Amino acid sequence: MKKLEIVYGIHPLIEAIIANQTIKKIFSQRGLKQVSNAYKKLISLSKEKYIPIEIVSKQKFYQFKNKNHQGVFAILSPIKTYHIQDLLPIFYEKGKNPLLIILDRITDVRNFGSIIRTAACAGADAIIIPKKDTAMIGSDSIKTSSGALFKIPICQEKNILNTIEFLKNSGLKIVSATEKSNIYWYNIDFSGPIALILGNEEKGISSKYLKNSYEKAKIPAKKGISSLNVSVACGVILYEILRQRKYQFKTRF
Amino acid sequence: MKKLEIVYGIHPLIEAIIANQTIKKIFSQRGLKQVSNAYKKLISLSKEKYIPIEIVSKQKFYQFKNKNHQGVFAILSPIKTYHIQDLLPIFYEKGKNPLLIILDRITDVRNFGSIIRTAACAGADAIIIPKKDTAMIGSDSIKTSSGALFKIPICQEKNILNTIEFLKNSGLKIVSATEKSNIYWYNIDFSGPIALILGNEEKGISSKYLKNSYEKAKIPAKKGISSLNVSVACGVILYEILRQRKYQFKTRF
Repeated sequence: MKKLEIVYGIHPLIEAIIANQTIKKIFSQRGLKQVSNAYKKLISLSKEKYIPIEIVSKQKFYQFKNKNHQGVFAILSPIKTYHIQDLLPIFYEKGKNPLLIILDRITDVRNFGSIIRTAACAGADAIIIPKKDTAMIGSDSIKTSSGALFKIPICQEKNILNTIEFLKNSGLKIVSATEKSNIYWYNIDFSGPIALILGNEEKGISSKYLKNSYEKAKIPAKKGISSLNVSVACGVILYEILRQRKYQFKTRF
Repeated sequence: MKKLEIVYGIHPLIEAIIANQTIKKIFSQRGLKQVSNAYKKLISLSKEKYIPIEIVSKQKFYQFKNKNHQGVFAILSPIKTYHIQDLLPIFYEKGKNPLLIILDRITDVRNFGSIIRTAACAGADAIIIPKKDTAMIGSDSIKTSSGALFKIPICQEKNILNTIEFLKNSGLKIVSATEKSNIYWYNIDFSGPIALILGNEEKGISSKYLKNSYEKAKIPAKKGISSLNVSVACGVILYEILRQRKYQFKTRF
C-alpha cells in the first residue's frame, strides 16, 4: 500500500494545493506569528478548498527540526482526485456506457469504504463526492474499501448541484435511491448512461438533488425494520443495472 | 433494547442450557475444587452445546458476594434461538414461500449483524447458523444489525449438513453464493422455497455444502478487485429473489 506523504513549508503547501493534491489537513504551529503574504495565500487557498487547519504545539514539528518547515506541514493523501468534467469525455471516447455514483453526505468511513469496494466490484466508472460533508479519503477508507480506492477514480466537486446539471446536459440519467418513491428499483430502465445518487443514512438525499433526479428508485424494506445499509442498497441497485445491461458483462469483467 | 441476563449457580445454569437459552460463555472460579456430580453434568452439557468455559478470578464473583453462586455464572443472550425443524412446518402452515439463509462460518460480528439487517429488510423467514465457528450472538451483533436480531428468528444447528439434508427433503432449493460457478445470480429460478448459503469471506463455502447445493450463484466482480463483501452479496441475491417473486411484495412488506 502507498504511504502517506508529508509536505512542509509554506510554498510547497501552496503548490500542493494548486496541483489539486488531496490534503486531509494542514497543521500550523501554535504561537507563531505568520504575517507573510505567502502565508495569507496559503490560508485563503485552504479555505477555498475546504482544507481544515489545526493549530498544534511545537513538539509536532520535532520531525522537521533541521528543516525549514516555516511552522506548517500537511499530510497528502495517496489518492488523487479528479473532476468529472475531465473524465466523462474520456469515458465516452472509450465507448463506455457511463455508470457514476454520487455520494451525498456519506460521512461514515466504513460506509464510504464499503460503497467504493462495491462500486469497484460492479465496474462503476467513477465516484463523485462533495468537498464538504464527506468521509475523509485516508488510510481508514482505503482499508475499509479493501484497497478499491486505488481502483476507481474519485471526483471531488465543490458544487454537486452544478455537477448534476452538467451530467444531465451530458446525457446521463440521474437516479436517486430513496424510500420517498413508489417505483421499485427494478422497474427503472438503466440501459443508458446513469448517475446514481446515494444519500446520508439518516437524512437521506437532499431535496434539491431529489428534485433534479429523473427517477427515484425505491428498495422496499419490511415494516418495522430499519432500512438497508447504504452500501448494501448500492450493491442491490448496481447489480440490477448489470443484470439489465447483460451484454456489457464482457466489457466490464 | 433488552438487557443481558446473568445466571449464577450450578443448577440454574444446567436448567438454562437444557431450556436452550443462548449462553455466550460460562465463567468458573479459579482454584475452586468442583467435584459434585452436578458440576460434572454442567461441564458435559456445556461441551455438548459448544459453550466455552473461562476460568476467572474470585474478584469476578464480587457482584454475587451474598449469593450462592457456587463458583459459576453465565451471561444469557436476550436472543432466543430456534431449530429450523420446528419453524419450517409453521412457515408452510402460514402459506409462506420460505426464504432461509444459512451462514457457513461467518465469524466477523459486523458482517453477521449486517447480514441479519439485510435479511430482515428483505423479509427472509429465518437465519440458520452452526453451533461452532460463528459470530457471537451478543450486544455487538445486536448493534450492528440495528436491532434486526430481534426481528428475524435465528436457528442454531449442531450439524449443518444434516440441516441441509432436512431442507432438501422439505422441498427447499439449496443455492450457494459462490465465485466457483459460471451461472450468474439472476439466471437462477428463485420462485420456489429457497435456502441461500453464504460462506466465510476468505474460505468461501465448505465443499461439502457446495456439493449439496442444487444451484451455485455467481455475482461477478471486476478483475483485480477483491470480491463483494458478504453482506452486500446477500443483499444482491435477496433482492433479486424479491424481484423474481414480485407478487409476494404485498405479503412481505
